[in-house]
Formats: sequence, structure tokens, C-alpha cells
Amino acid sequence: MNNTTLPKGFKAFGMSCGIKKDNIKDLGLIYSEKPANAAGVFTKNVIKAAPVLLCIERIKTGKFRAAVANSGNANCCVGPTGMESALRMTRAAAKALDIDETSVYTASTGVIGAPLPVSKIENAAEMLVKGLSENGMDSFAESIMTTDTVPKTVTRTAKSGYTITGTAKGAGMIRPDMATMLSFIVTDAGAISEYLYKALKKAADITMNIITIDGDTSTNDTVLIAANGESGFDITTGEDEKEFESILESIMFDLSKMMLEDGEGVTKIVTIAVKGASNDEDAAKIADTIAHSPLVKTAFFGEDANWGRIIAATGRAGAAFNPETVDILFDDVIVAENSVARAGNMEEAASAVLKKPEFTVTVNLNIGQGTARMLTTDFSYDYIKINADYRS
Amino acid sequence: MNNTTLPKGFKAFGMSCGIKKDNIKDLGLIYSEKPANAAGVFTKNVIKAAPVLLCIERIKTGKFRAAVANSGNANCCVGPTGMESALRMTRAAAKALDIDETSVYTASTGVIGAPLPVSKIENAAEMLVKGLSENGMDSFAESIMTTDTVPKTVTRTAKSGYTITGTAKGAGMIRPDMATMLSFIVTDAGAISEYLYKALKKAADITMNIITIDGDTSTNDTVLIAANGESGFDITTGEDEKEFESILESIMFDLSKMMLEDGEGVTKIVTIAVKGASNDEDAAKIADTIAHSPLVKTAFFGEDANWGRIIAATGRAGAAFNPETVDILFDDVIVAENSVARAGNMEEAASAVLKKPEFTVTVNLNIGQGTARMLTTDFSYDYIKINADYRS
Repeated sequence: MNNTTLPKGFKAFGMSCGIKKDNIKDLGLIYSEKPANAAGVFTKNVIKAAPVLLCIERIKTGKFRAAVANSGNANCCVGPTGMESALRMTRAAAKALDIDETSVYTASTGVIGAPLPVSKIENAAEMLVKGLSENGMDSFAESIMTTDTVPKTVTRTAKSGYTITGTAKGAGMIRPDMATMLSFIVTDAGAISEYLYKALKKAADITMNIITIDGDTSTNDTVLIAANGESGFDITTGEDEKEFESILESIMFDLSKMMLEDGEGVTKIVTIAVKGASNDEDAAKIADTIAHSPLVKTAFFGEDANWGRIIAATGRAGAAFNPETVDILFDDVIVAENSVARAGNMEEAASAVLKKPEFTVTVNLNIGQGTARMLTTDFSYDYIKINADYRS
Repeated sequence: MNNTTLPKGFKAFGMSCGIKKDNIKDLGLIYSEKPANAAGVFTKNVIKAAPVLLCIERIKTGKFRAAVANSGNANCCVGPTGMESALRMTRAAAKALDIDETSVYTASTGVIGAPLPVSKIENAAEMLVKGLSENGMDSFAESIMTTDTVPKTVTRTAKSGYTITGTAKGAGMIRPDMATMLSFIVTDAGAISEYLYKALKKAADITMNIITIDGDTSTNDTVLIAANGESGFDITTGEDEKEFESILESIMFDLSKMMLEDGEGVTKIVTIAVKGASNDEDAAKIADTIAHSPLVKTAFFGEDANWGRIIAATGRAGAAFNPETVDILFDDVIVAENSVARAGNMEEAASAVLKKPEFTVTVNLNIGQGTARMLTTDFSYDYIKINADYRS
């Protein structure tokens, strides 16, 4: 875990500045030595933390030099001091780096509603910059963790010679229809910011936007991508885009899986695949309802092949379908056919599937071509424990 | 618990017929000696159990003599044998009672997807009718229990001399926007079925349709009301209607509260009151999102005044509002004002509220007149335990 490669020209570092107790890392910085192009996607929550509002404003320039992030405090719902703190964070980093503060981005994660002790960050800024190194991505990844138990980084090098490295944090408050949790992706490929946005949005929609742990979205979700061109390779042709997007998607998918694997109290990762709906929208409604049903998720935890709960969730999703033509499969095991338990007791074979740490539930409505896919988790005792005790 | 009064001319009984193990009651009958008028509301789930489909058909006549119900098996998703079993259940009861089978209603609750052992019900029909008595409502209430730990009945007598008695079962798979769980309400007032439907629907919308435990709806939800006029008092004037509806609503509200109190793993009952929204629809969206948020519900269990999770849920509900004017209260304690923690640390006062078994969370958006109210519960270890182990 201590050797994540950064693309050429990027440095990073993470350290403790005293927001969290016990010297736990809570402050991180990513820095591009040369000006980079950038894009971002952000939470759709009406309540947006000050750092998100600041990033949304600054990303309009498409220019990036650094991102400073903290954990332990979300800098959200604290009134006008929120924006002031976010500005002070980027100003302190900019000063220590001797760069223009409008090219510095910021992200915060942690408890909502408590003022950010921003002077601790200001006091640490010089040391933060001193710590920057090409090997610093792992300490950065650690510094943005909240209930995560492991830091999450993925790096991949393209045949064309450039590298993409991503990190993400998130173990709860995760659902689709939003940006995602905090995630930072950097590359030494060259690309214009308009293209970066297009590629990032497209990748997010089939990776970070189809995962769910508990259906809750945060006020601070941010994904930033920055490309500094230092590899000497620029994304220009359609072929280049294809390669870049394929790598970007695989990195974001791996980070998504890591977030689920590290999800609060998670013991199972379950793909919900809906097929044969009237249209994709109906399929998505059904996948979403199944993926968020507490009864379905507790049955996964109990390793109970209770397809009755799955068909009941299907029926309340708000999509029209024929109640008599639904097939349900656990991996390849058909448990229900035409909305009826399959002849020959399949319980045993289905139970074997549910004992696995990863499996797929397929719901086929058999009325059309609509499909949707989501990744969800089980609900366990530990999910309750972690969330009942979060602030204490 | 053993002396629930039935209105004049009604009898009831509950017994064990062997669907459940260990002689646990699993079969019940309610009977009106004279023909009664009736109405019903049913699940909105696309997947409807055979007994629900049969009731929807028969309730069109508005006529009622008896309702036969079983627990331990939902008679749902079993193919054409489902309707056959439902018909055989009502036929067996009608034969033993010597009445027209089309005036007999049926309801089933329990596991989905397993064939109903209907011959056990047929074999028990004579004994079931023999057991009928004016004191039998408590044993009936017991016979429809699933994960409920106590039978639930409420009875009230009007100044005008008639009585209304209701029973309900349900401790999970409960959410609004549906009929409710199984509930049977009988009265010796006289009323036409069209009026009964109007009064029942109106009462359900402000009682059973605003409670939630886990956001899941069943395939079998049924509420039936029957009025046999045996008290000699007929509902005719507007004043009569007002009295009747007020009693009906209070009975249905009490049954709703009982279901929440007996909810799976429930330790808290929380009223979510949303005010000051643009309109009632927006307010309802927000109340619904807060009431179903696992992060909010686990914080209730942890007795944590984490209003950050409440404002985050408010922001993702899909309703537009001003992110800077939100007030949040725990009972009378203002914890956030204009979306910011209230000056003077209110944590201690708020924590005292959260230690109570019942309290109200108020979210005031301060932008309009829209309001909504929902009753929800916490999410505890026991919710997970009960639902992970349900079928084993």
C-alpha cells in the first residue's frame, strides 16, 4: 500500500494537523508542478458545503495547480464562516506553494455543523508543502479517510505512456444520482478541460454513480480530475479518447468497488441486474428500489435466498410490468420463473450463491429491452454500530 | 388484553390449524350475524397476492358477512394455485357458516413463494366456526401476527351508542403510499359502503399511510371495514359523519402507533414534521426521505442529535428550497437556525430529547406554507437480527 505511483509532475502528502485526535492524518495536498487542466463533478444535494461551492466556482476556469483536503470536519452548515474557512485553506496552501490561490481547490469531509478549526490548517501549511513527494499519494489517501478502514488508490499506465492515478474515500453516505464521495484523479496525459469533464462524467455514470451502501448522499461529494500533460502525450484522436476513457473507467470502477468492500459493516457486494423492462428508466427505478430495500439487504446479510422480498421491492418501485412474468436468478440459479418458485427446490443451490462474498441478483421482467445495473451491499450489525456511534 | 369488545352482532375467533409450528395461532375468522356493508383499501404493489386480488373483486359488491385470515404463509407468487387456495379458503368458511361464499373475504400474511397448505384450513373450518364468540377478537388478533410480539386491538364507543373495533398486524415491511398491513375494523353503526370507503380512505391517509418502519411494502396489505347497523344507529347527517370519522381516525392512529411500538427492533418512535416548504408535496418528499434515511435512523438509535444527517437528507429529497434558511428542532430545542448550529451549545438539551422513547423532529424551510408529517422509528441491531433470520 506504500508505493502508489503518481503521474509525472504530480506530488502529494498527507499529515496530521490536529483536527482529529491522536495524531491521525487529517490534512492532505496534491500538487502539479506545471499548470494542469481540470474538471469536476459534485454532489447534487441542495445543501452544499462551502468547499464544494468554491470548487464549483473555480472549476469554471478549467485550470488546476493544487487541491488541499481535510477530514474530521465537513465545513458545512456553519454559515458565512464556511466560505471564509474554505478560502483561508486555499490561500494558506497557495502562499506556501507560491502559486495563484484561484488555481487551488479544496474539499472537506467529516461532521456537519461544527466550525472548521482553519487556523490549524494554516499553521500546518508550510509543513504540508515541505512533505510533498512523488511517493506521497498513499499518505494523501490516508488523510481524507473518515470511517474508511483502508486508504484507496489505483494507478494504471497507458500503452501510450501516460499514467492515471486515482484515490477515493467513502464508506457510508453513498448513493447514486450524485457525484460520489471525495475522489481525486490525476494524469500526466495532456487533455483540455472540456474533454476531461466529458470523460469524467461518462465514467462516473457507470461507476461511482451506480454504487450504494445506504442511500444517503453527503453535502461534500467531489470528484476532481487534473491532467498536466507532463508525459508528453496529448489526448487528441478518437482512439486516444477510447484508451483514456477505458483506463479512467477501470480506475473509477476499482475505486467504487474498494469503497463498497470497505463499506460500513459490509460483508457482501451484490450486483443488481434488471433486464427486460419496458425501458431503461423503469429498469433503473427497480434496481434502485431493490438496492436500497432494508429487507433485501438484511436478507443478504442473513444469506437467505428470500426472493419474495426481491419481487416485493420490484413491485413497489413505481414501474409498470406484468406481475406474472418475472424471473429471478441468484448468479445462474433460477429461483423464480414467471413469478413463481421454480419447480425442483432451488433453495439449496441459491443458498450456496448467497454464501459467496460477491454475487449477482438478476430480475428479468420479460416485457421489453430496458436494462439497469447497480452495486449494493448487505446491512449488518456493524452498519448500525458504526452509525449509531459515529460522533461519540 | 383478553377483553376486547366487539360491536353488536359480530363474533370472532383465532386458532392454530398447523401452518405454523408449535400450535401457534395461524387462522382467524370474523363474522357478522347480519349482512354488513363494507369497504377496503389494498396494497399498491404491482405484485398482489391472490387473497388481495379476490378481495378487490368481491369488495365491489360492498357486502360482507365474514373474513377468514391466516398467518405463516402469504399465498403470493405461487401461480394459479394461489387464487384456487384463496377461493377454497373462503368456500370452506362459507360452508361451515352456511352463508354465500361471495360475501366472505380473505387475507394471508407470511412467507412469499411457498404454496399455502389450504387443506389444513379446510380441515379446521368447522372448529373455527364453532369457536366464534363475542369475546373472540383477541384470539383473532393473535392469529394474524407474524413478527409482531403482541396482538393489537382498539375499541371505542360513540356517544351515539355504536361501537367501532379494529385490529391490525404488522411490525415490518411497512411504509406509506400503500394501504397498510392487515387490518380489520368492524362497527355496529349503519353506513353505506360508498361512505365507508370514503371515511376509510380519508382516515388511512392520515394514520396508516404516514407510518414507516423500513420503507418496504408487502404484497398482501389489506384494510377492511364492515358496518352491520346492529346498534340501530345509522350514519346519515354531516354531524354523524364527523363523529364516526373522528373515532375511526383515532382507532386507526392508535393501531398505527401500536405497529410502530411493536416494530422490528424499534426503540424510538419519531414524528418527522416538515414545515415552511413551497408546497405540501415538497414537504412530503422531505419527510419521506428523512423518515427512511438509514443514517438518520441509526443516529436515533444511538441517541445522537446529529442534525447534519437530517439536513443532508433534506437536501437530497428532490425538493427545491433555500439552503440557508433551514431550522431544525428536536421537540422544542432549536439545534440549527438558518442552516447553522444555534449559538450557545444546544447539544446537551437536544441529547436529553433523544433519550426519550418518543419525540418530534421539526424541519422548517421558512420559504412557504407546505407541511407534512410522518411517523418513523430507529434502526437497531435487533432490526437486522429479526430480518436476517426471518425464514430460518
